[in-house]
Amino acid sequence: MRQIHICEVGPRDGLQNAHHLMPTEAKKAWIASMAAAGIEEIEVGSFVPPKLIPAMADTAEIVAFALTIPNIKVVALAPNVKGFERAVASGAHKVTFPVSASRAHSLANVRMTPEQMVEEVRRCVELRSQSRGKNGPEIEAGVSTAFGCTMQGEVPEDDVVRLAVMLAGTGADCVALADTVGYANPAQIRRLFRKVRNEIGDKLEAAHLHNTRGLGLANALAAYEEGVRHFDSSMGGLGGCPFAPGASGNVVTEDLVFMFESMGVPTGVNFDKLLEARKLLVAGVPEEPVYGHTPLAGLPKGFRAAA
Amino acid sequence: MRQIHICEVGPRDGLQNAHHLMPTEAKKAWIASMAAAGIEEIEVGSFVPPKLIPAMADTAEIVAFALTIPNIKVVALAPNVKGFERAVASGAHKVTFPVSASRAHSLANVRMTPEQMVEEVRRCVELRSQSRGKNGPEIEAGVSTAFGCTMQGEVPEDDVVRLAVMLAGTGADCVALADTVGYANPAQIRRLFRKVRNEIGDKLEAAHLHNTRGLGLANALAAYEEGVRHFDSSMGGLGGCPFAPGASGNVVTEDLVFMFESMGVPTGVNFDKLLEARKLLVAGVPEEPVYGHTPLAGLPKGFRAAA
Repeated sequence: MRQIHICEVGPRDGLQNAHHLMPTEAKKAWIASMAAAGIEEIEVGSFVPPKLIPAMADTAEIVAFALTIPNIKVVALAPNVKGFERAVASGAHKVTFPVSASRAHSLANVRMTPEQMVEEVRRCVELRSQSRGKNGPEIEAGVSTAFGCTMQGEVPEDDVVRLAVMLAGTGADCVALADTVGYANPAQIRRLFRKVRNEIGDKLEAAHLHNTRGLGLANALAAYEEGVRHFDSSMGGLGGCPFAPGASGNVVTEDLVFMFESMGVPTGVNFDKLLEARKLLVAGVPEEPVYGHTPLAGLPKGFRAAA
Repeated sequence: MRQIHICEVGPRDGLQNAHHLMPTEAKKAWIASMAAAGIEEIEVGSFVPPKLIPAMADTAEIVAFALTIPNIKVVALAPNVKGFERAVASGAHKVTFPVSASRAHSLANVRMTPEQMVEEVRRCVELRSQSRGKNGPEIEAGVSTAFGCTMQGEVPEDDVVRLAVMLAGTGADCVALADTVGYANPAQIRRLFRKVRNEIGDKLEAAHLHNTRGLGLANALAAYEEGVRHFDSSMGGLGGCPFAPGASGNVVTEDLVFMFESMGVPTGVNFDKLLEARKLLVAGVPEEPVYGHTPLAGLPKGFRAAA
């Protein structure tokens, strides 16, 4: 009955940008509680050099734990072939690659041009097809800074479309569009999702939205109305933005669930259990600010979840 | 060039629900600064008994001041004939009546049933037509709790439509739909605005939305796509909700302006000047929490306002 597929990215995108480290055991408890609330897909970590991002140093252990939870898809981020190989070794069900449409951001983030990153994804797809002993992970290529970039400013839509087409051509299973820095507006969301879908069809899957300027849910609504059914979000809008105190990070899972459920569109997520999971998030990083309106206001009187 | 008409309701809906009083002179400075930012309509106060709502005791003086500002429409709320007479005496350009679709809320808020409130509005329209010496104010009837009520829970859509039709029949100039307690979702917004417009046509004008559960902008987007061009909003989401600490009140003017401008839809409001006005809001009620994402995050790099 689930019509909306939420991938919770808090353990990766949230904790990676948080100011405090969450202990490994607390991560496990939090991830298990989100799975218990009905979250079907969780991006649990990132295979990046631990020296660069200490918060992700325990990713292999977290993946191993998450694989013991029934009925969830375990996702890990990899920025390159090396990260992909570690992800494959961990047994993650799905690997996601950040491929920035902004040249400046791409060089700063992964020290490669967008075109070099496309080749990196292609090599990983080839590696997967060469390994015959077992099935390799699903591969997602996320076009980051697809709606603008704090370094470059405007990102031409043609650049995004061209990059999405190249990524689809690598043999990656799906492509996502990411508003990495919270620049997107609903008109742009509609336009760009439509353009990319016209080119690569159903390979275009998820919307990864941030709430930096408060438009996260409006953008999610626009994407939904353009046919998007897969959304990344982060519990408590975890992670914030180091450049904007008080400006939350990813679109807030709790509010996203409330929006769709109140519209009568089932997410498969139980809101009360989600609030239980939120308690474990707060317990795991007690000094980190968490956001979200519905957790504070509560559900409306007489509220009924979508059937 | 303005395509979106914003009525700033902070001085009324915001301050009325704030925990701290804003001094009269600070109100004047704040209102003037919002007008200078391009806000064309401001709900500056409420003609209710000062004993009930001390924050609104200076409304006549505030209206008199606001009338000296060029190019703004000065709005005051009145809950009954007595309030309307005071509003007329003050010279306000427009008077808005809160007419609750929830019977429970109506009795608690104005000690009248919805039907009695309709008659109250009708008498005010008649009073206006009887006064020949000068033109009376524009009259707006706002259907409050149109999307749900904290007392009653669900408010049947048929009740809202019937009430809107009755209000249009009084001779009021325009009717608004208000999500007084932040229960609305985008699907409901689309459905109800469409139903009411089918009945009363262009007499349906404004959407008055709250952000209690974070859906304020998503609901504004849905209303916009249903043809709504008049929006109430409150600078800094002022007022909050006494029942939900941290849950903001009205949809935030700054974020609403950013959303539409970034979509290429002009609001006539200058964002930088709006931030100047926000400073005067904070100066006027320094202990009151103010909300809004865009003021904290700043405009995107390379941002261009709508032409």
